[in-house]
Amino acid sequence: MIILITGDGKGKTTSALGQMMRVLGRGKSALMIQFIKGPWISGEDKFGEKYHISNDKFQIRKRGLGFVGILGDKLPREEHARAAKSALEEFGRERESGNWHLIVLDEINVALSLELLTIQEVLNAIKDYPEDSLLMLTGRGAPQELIDLADLVTETKDIKHPYHDGQDAKPMVEF
Amino acid sequence: MIILITGDGKGKTTSALGQMMRVLGRGKSALMIQFIKGPWISGEDKFGEKYHISNDKFQIRKRGLGFVGILGDKLPREEHARAAKSALEEFGRERESGNWHLIVLDEINVALSLELLTIQEVLNAIKDYPEDSLLMLTGRGAPQELIDLADLVTETKDIKHPYHDGQDAKPMVEF
Repeated sequence: MIILITGDGKGKTTSALGQMMRVLGRGKSALMIQFIKGPWISGEDKFGEKYHISNDKFQIRKRGLGFVGILGDKLPREEHARAAKSALEEFGRERESGNWHLIVLDEINVALSLELLTIQEVLNAIKDYPEDSLLMLTGRGAPQELIDLADLVTETKDIKHPYHDGQDAKPMVEF
Repeated sequence: MIILITGDGKGKTTSALGQMMRVLGRGKSALMIQFIKGPWISGEDKFGEKYHISNDKFQIRKRGLGFVGILGDKLPREEHARAAKSALEEFGRERESGNWHLIVLDEINVALSLELLTIQEVLNAIKDYPEDSLLMLTGRGAPQELIDLADLVTETKDIKHPYHDGQDAKPMVEF
């Protein structure tokens, strides 16, 4: 089953984290592979360690190199693209392994918008996803091909956000 | 700070659970009080126990009596209303206690739509919420007064859902 969470509202990655909690609660395992988010440490990254959740039950792997083309990013676009392709290959291996009831490809829609990946690469990677396990795709700007393929699609709409008043992202709210 | 997640899409309670994970990861505590959800057991309910997370760090309290007026509900409306009012009073005590960095009032918007609570009661309960802690309100159909009051509002839109094909709610997806 494939769940897609897109749109410009807060609550996409957060919703994927909640889905991971739900899966953990039922004794199953959950992996998140992050395509864009870079090396900074979020609340969720400390969670597994703090509560001694074993690596085969819960992992968040940061495979992005940070923001692309904004906020002081100086990396060549090809390096970002290489990181994204490598993350997608990693997903293929993890999918094959059968270790994970839930795999989240966090911000993969953004990797597509930025053309770090092609839609064909992503469609190949996720096709024939088993009915009895969960794949979750997040990020704003999901392409229509993914909306068509997913079993469940939610669009989040940003109605109001402190960003609009120039406030920074807040620990525990945004990360 | 008050975060409001409304709309008819999947991902409202799930997003609140993810927010709880984020808060836990930073060593703070999170409480969810559920206004509608009844006695059935969800993945998230087993989570704290399974991972030995202490009760002062993480709790989900079911204070609803199940669905209201649908799916075989035979309870008088007043019983549902009494439960909702009692849950709101409980929230007041927990807020006062200062024990929780994050409190989620899950499906409180639905309790308002069903007139189990009045908007004035809810506004009184949440007014002057401290800036440095988090209150999260979920449920479809948020009244404008709550949208106006909240610092951050996301609307989830149901683009596609297996429900529409007559499928039942699935463990680990919906609960």
